[in-house]
Amino acid sequence: MSAFSRFTPLIRSLPATVPFVGPEAIERQRGRRIAARIGANESGFGPADSVFLAIQRAAGETWKYADPENYELRRALAGHLGTSPAHIAVGEGIDGLLGEIVRLVVERDTPVVTSLGGYPTFNYHVAGHGGRLVTVPYVDDREDLDGLLAAVKREAAPLIYLANPDNPMGSWWPAARIIEFAAALPDTTLLILDEAYCETAPPEALPSSESLIDRPNVIRTRTFSKAYGLAGARVGYALTTPGTAQAFDKIRNHFGMNRIGVAAAQAALSDQQYLKEVTQRIAASRDRIAGIARENGLLPLASATNFVTIDCGRDATYARSIVDRLMGDHGIFIRMPGVAPLNRCVRISTGPDAEMDLLEAALPAVLRSMAER
Amino acid sequence: MSAFSRFTPLIRSLPATVPFVGPEAIERQRGRRIAARIGANESGFGPADSVFLAIQRAAGETWKYADPENYELRRALAGHLGTSPAHIAVGEGIDGLLGEIVRLVVERDTPVVTSLGGYPTFNYHVAGHGGRLVTVPYVDDREDLDGLLAAVKREAAPLIYLANPDNPMGSWWPAARIIEFAAALPDTTLLILDEAYCETAPPEALPSSESLIDRPNVIRTRTFSKAYGLAGARVGYALTTPGTAQAFDKIRNHFGMNRIGVAAAQAALSDQQYLKEVTQRIAASRDRIAGIARENGLLPLASATNFVTIDCGRDATYARSIVDRLMGDHGIFIRMPGVAPLNRCVRISTGPDAEMDLLEAALPAVLRSMAER
Repeated sequence: MSAFSRFTPLIRSLPATVPFVGPEAIERQRGRRIAARIGANESGFGPADSVFLAIQRAAGETWKYADPENYELRRALAGHLGTSPAHIAVGEGIDGLLGEIVRLVVERDTPVVTSLGGYPTFNYHVAGHGGRLVTVPYVDDREDLDGLLAAVKREAAPLIYLANPDNPMGSWWPAARIIEFAAALPDTTLLILDEAYCETAPPEALPSSESLIDRPNVIRTRTFSKAYGLAGARVGYALTTPGTAQAFDKIRNHFGMNRIGVAAAQAALSDQQYLKEVTQRIAASRDRIAGIARENGLLPLASATNFVTIDCGRDATYARSIVDRLMGDHGIFIRMPGVAPLNRCVRISTGPDAEMDLLEAALPAVLRSMAER
Repeated sequence: MSAFSRFTPLIRSLPATVPFVGPEAIERQRGRRIAARIGANESGFGPADSVFLAIQRAAGETWKYADPENYELRRALAGHLGTSPAHIAVGEGIDGLLGEIVRLVVERDTPVVTSLGGYPTFNYHVAGHGGRLVTVPYVDDREDLDGLLAAVKREAAPLIYLANPDNPMGSWWPAARIIEFAAALPDTTLLILDEAYCETAPPEALPSSESLIDRPNVIRTRTFSKAYGLAGARVGYALTTPGTAQAFDKIRNHFGMNRIGVAAAQAALSDQQYLKEVTQRIAASRDRIAGIARENGLLPLASATNFVTIDCGRDATYARSIVDRLMGDHGIFIRMPGVAPLNRCVRISTGPDAEMDLLEAALPAVLRSMAER
């Protein structure tokens, strides 16, 4: 297939890839519609009714570019977080922000520390900028803070990624340990503290806004894609010092935000009553998934996120069969971690009762069909 | 202001900047609401009614990420263009695609050819990747094809940007000259042929889809932001060979598209009757802007776009005063080219009659107030 001949050497060395196969692609490949979409850690509970009203109102202005300064959203976030807008950078979801952060720090062969089996999209961005990934295994299904710190120091790495709560395992560290970890990092190492799941975490897992706000080498990333129910809107933000936040302005796509999406995010943020309700429903759904797992002889791991990771007790082949058969035989879309030993598990997103009913009915059938082979 | 100390040398060398100050920022700076938003080449005519219906329908699915393969949109575009989906890459507006293309080709000090006074956001991306801009002056307010070709050859440049029709001048070259230009380029030079304004151009200005589709060194960029009235949706696409199109998959933000925006773009594409109507209204508005200019002793340039560039007959200071006073005294937001000799002009976007009425009333008052000084 004929391609332009003079892409950069780095680009030529990269595979054409996708960090995750999308549910729609799975539907096309399998020729089967998804009946329960509980694999991408979206929120089947959806956003608040007030958000739908905001979308309707914003539709009339979709002929206008969004404000490139994202002034109103940043102001609303600052109010919510008790900080100032200068501390906040807005981007096209955390994925977009991760790409920008990597570009700010990573050149060819720059060492970058992350956990082995951590977020693939971060790894994708590091590879895309020619960085060298240094991975640290999970310990007891948690990211290994001591190991990560040792790797940073050994490699003199300028960038480290840590998710708290963690994806794909759902585990978390208490706030005090995270703060201690950030303080122990050299000033010359930038910590991406990915808090995509902060809204569903127990309060003791989250450092306060103030606790890390004065560290130029810490960027906390958050999103409207999870508990707020707006994965399709692509609105994420970074919380850091004004100086570090300003670096995004050097490279970001200033007119890249979707206007309706920004309006939806603002409406979602101002409806904290809905957030409270939906996080309760997410917690209840977590309990239900854990119960279904146990009834089927599988081991649910504790979760601070909007999904539950389930230890299936055997190897990756076994876990993959569960994922494949849930989809192939029942139209139930779930995912699993990509790397051993995490890939003994499957990962199921929380969702409404209808989806949980399908899962509850299908899982025993799948496990039975596997025992029969 | 304290920033992380170990951003790359390139990043540290870049200014924190914005290629265009947004209208909302102008409102905040001036403390005055915009009454006529006719400066950003958006479409005040808005999208089709069918698009609003599609937005409403898609709102219910905004909790889902968009399909990372953008399969349905690419299929619809392929049908519309008489090509296959493999020839099409979708991105977050042309701005997003330009950033990706630059990243595919540009390293430190890579020479990149463009016109002096051409699209600032392209220049921003080139600077952001450390490229070296080689600029060629406009001739008679058109991009200078011979001069651009000579610069490419002289510099052995791997990348050149050409807009047809052109922004900020509204001028254009006939299709045959564009095809000839592309054919004359070395295979090792990638042509970005920016056709953001293709829907409002006379048919003879546009190379057919087939005419350049087999050239791996040509990427044509298009958008739903202009005639389709969806600037806020951030949906653009690139048309090229399958091999070149695949390169985007190496670096793009696969889950970066807004789901409602994609649905809106698909609906807009399938309503070609509305597109026909709105391009007629845009043409009528162009005529009206030209008439207003002439009545005021100014010279409208011919336009193939959704804006009219007006030669104010004096220097940049004069043109800037018109821009400033239209906004400051009347709340009419327009823009002007940034570089001499283009900046003797102002640039006014087409729009509904109400906006044109405001312009018609305000322009003579502004010119009078300037004569009085």
